[in-house]
Amino acid sequence: MASVNSNYLKLPGSYLFSTIGKRVREYGDAHPDADIIRLGIGDVTRPLVPSVIRALHDAVEEMGDAASFKGYAPDLGYPFLREVIAERDYRKRGCAVSPDEIFVSDGAKSDCANIQEIFGPDNVIAVCDPVYPVYTDSNVMAGRTGDYDPASQRFCGVIYMPCTEENGFVPDLPSEPADLIYLCFPNNPTGAVITKEQLQRFVDHARRTGAVILYDAAYEAYISEPDIPHSIYECEGADTCAIEFRSFSKTAGFTGLRLGFTVVPKALVVDGVALHDLWARRHGTKYNGAPYIVQRAGEAVYSDTGRKEIREQIAGYMENARIIREGLEKAGYTAYGGVNAPYIWMKTPDGMSSWDFFDLLLDKIRVVGTPGSGFGPHGEHFFRLTAFGSRENTVRAVERFGSLAYNG
Amino acid sequence: MASVNSNYLKLPGSYLFSTIGKRVREYGDAHPDADIIRLGIGDVTRPLVPSVIRALHDAVEEMGDAASFKGYAPDLGYPFLREVIAERDYRKRGCAVSPDEIFVSDGAKSDCANIQEIFGPDNVIAVCDPVYPVYTDSNVMAGRTGDYDPASQRFCGVIYMPCTEENGFVPDLPSEPADLIYLCFPNNPTGAVITKEQLQRFVDHARRTGAVILYDAAYEAYISEPDIPHSIYECEGADTCAIEFRSFSKTAGFTGLRLGFTVVPKALVVDGVALHDLWARRHGTKYNGAPYIVQRAGEAVYSDTGRKEIREQIAGYMENARIIREGLEKAGYTAYGGVNAPYIWMKTPDGMSSWDFFDLLLDKIRVVGTPGSGFGPHGEHFFRLTAFGSRENTVRAVERFGSLAYNG
Repeated sequence: MASVNSNYLKLPGSYLFSTIGKRVREYGDAHPDADIIRLGIGDVTRPLVPSVIRALHDAVEEMGDAASFKGYAPDLGYPFLREVIAERDYRKRGCAVSPDEIFVSDGAKSDCANIQEIFGPDNVIAVCDPVYPVYTDSNVMAGRTGDYDPASQRFCGVIYMPCTEENGFVPDLPSEPADLIYLCFPNNPTGAVITKEQLQRFVDHARRTGAVILYDAAYEAYISEPDIPHSIYECEGADTCAIEFRSFSKTAGFTGLRLGFTVVPKALVVDGVALHDLWARRHGTKYNGAPYIVQRAGEAVYSDTGRKEIREQIAGYMENARIIREGLEKAGYTAYGGVNAPYIWMKTPDGMSSWDFFDLLLDKIRVVGTPGSGFGPHGEHFFRLTAFGSRENTVRAVERFGSLAYNG
Repeated sequence: MASVNSNYLKLPGSYLFSTIGKRVREYGDAHPDADIIRLGIGDVTRPLVPSVIRALHDAVEEMGDAASFKGYAPDLGYPFLREVIAERDYRKRGCAVSPDEIFVSDGAKSDCANIQEIFGPDNVIAVCDPVYPVYTDSNVMAGRTGDYDPASQRFCGVIYMPCTEENGFVPDLPSEPADLIYLCFPNNPTGAVITKEQLQRFVDHARRTGAVILYDAAYEAYISEPDIPHSIYECEGADTCAIEFRSFSKTAGFTGLRLGFTVVPKALVVDGVALHDLWARRHGTKYNGAPYIVQRAGEAVYSDTGRKEIREQIAGYMENARIIREGLEKAGYTAYGGVNAPYIWMKTPDGMSSWDFFDLLLDKIRVVGTPGSGFGPHGEHFFRLTAFGSRENTVRAVERFGSLAYNG
């Protein structure tokens, strides 16, 4: 008789963004005329840039002609894409990442969620608190945690690294021995960045303790200040202890196109086994590659014109971020992030709970954000807004926050 | 200190098709002028049909305009696609599958590999022998098997259901209690089909024993004879015991475009838990949907013009299948399949081993196929050829087999 994976039953409710989506849909159904502005889920709104559109059309044409048709992609992704990634994202920054260490995929979410599979069941994970739920949830599903404790709003057996106003939302080293350390900078949800020195401390710690760092750099394209590391491989020795995830979703507006990649350095050896071999085995056995046309779209992001267009797109979002952050501060709120990241991390007023604030905003000003507590207990009393809305909606949302400050 | 998932180390060598690809590449490097014909991996060669190309161009245009741009897709896939699938693939065949029971994905390979995650670690799997390696390998990785036994070429703790000439390559019910039963019809690699009565026996068995059937129907579009079930849901009660996987890869030449779907009926309850809920949780947490443009391409497959074009494409491949099978028989070989499936399952001559025959073919006639033993010990002394080559290459490959029969 079949049985289910009981670890799934430890997860409280549904995936955070599914829950929010459902609540907003229900509100919309009950208030069909409500003019709702969505700054909740980190989904982009600007169209794909012209270079990417052209590359897609060209690749579609190739797929319609027997002479240029492409079937299954190479296991790691097409060399034309892996080579340009290695050159532009790594070699240009002095990181020695080779094309063969890059695995092209359908996005950083899948890779962040799947990477834990190549590690043993007893590995203890350390995550930031607050944290992107995928890191934790995927390990819960795999049985690498204990039960959820509603009192602490945490899973037993997981090491949480608090990210607070006091530490500038950059955590201390794990307080207990950790085997897998998840880090995300620029950070989702807080919008904080880590300095090279702070990141080097994590790398040195991992090398000293034999831990592996799982580094989510999905938002690196939003870094605007100098001297902030774009890749963990800018740190000495990271190639022996870190895996890095990258995404085209936020960099180039690919949330609906699906493309990302993961770097597994060949020098990263655990238990005498190269993690590169294990991830290659997983990739080859359980996945069949990103679409050819999408890989061509990704290549176009690195072209001279593509890069220029993408920079303008990102600048547009970061102008949104500035408008939100300054608007909130003007309205009397405390807000973080938004300088090197597309996320603004605001404090709820008067110590209101994150979900109460969510309901208040939806009800009073019809603005959707993400309750900070959905990312972990240290996210309580915070609220995440994204810079990915249209300019018009962003400005209107900020105006509504202003009105709330006076009426609220 | 991190440790690896030691279950991965149980897997002998690399994924079958990666191994073949590597061997062919090495042969090609050593013999740069060799005119190699590839009938090995089941990859299509005909271009996408005009309806699909048009749909892709149109959807690309939408992605280039802010008013029609699409970000993250709905968790289960776009309703426009799920609704047409439910109507055309199921309701028209008398199967009561609703759009909400359909999960759109990037392909049946991913889903077949990932589905085991929602089941407990102690579930015992039953697979056909020979078998598409993904079913077994994904369970090995998850620790649901014992070690690989080189003597029997089997994993301990797995129930194998032999598919032989004697049983027409349709297995008997599992010889021991099985929790998860993987079936694939039309079959890869043997090209065999199952009758509705035979499939009903499996469904009845599963209902009686509480097993779940994981039914891979990726090749259903190739069924040419009447009365062969296209879906397991044509069987009475299958909605309470079976999950079905479908693919656009072979149906519509999407191997390089990536699209498939999985049906998890809401009536399928295990341990008091609806598997639909668990799969939805996995889909929402570890995956972000197939690209919008690819989902639009999938929709076009079901349009009147699309269906007509696809039927012609499949007829072209099935003419290849006929040419291969009849050509092999004329050259004195014994061959199966190729009538309701794009695979021809031939016996190696004189009891030669499958890999020896692979090497012989590559060396003597430069035709690449897949060694039957790569699919399991009962595949030994068999060899798989696919009908997915171009007509010209197919005809030339068959001519070469003829020459081999005389000279070999």
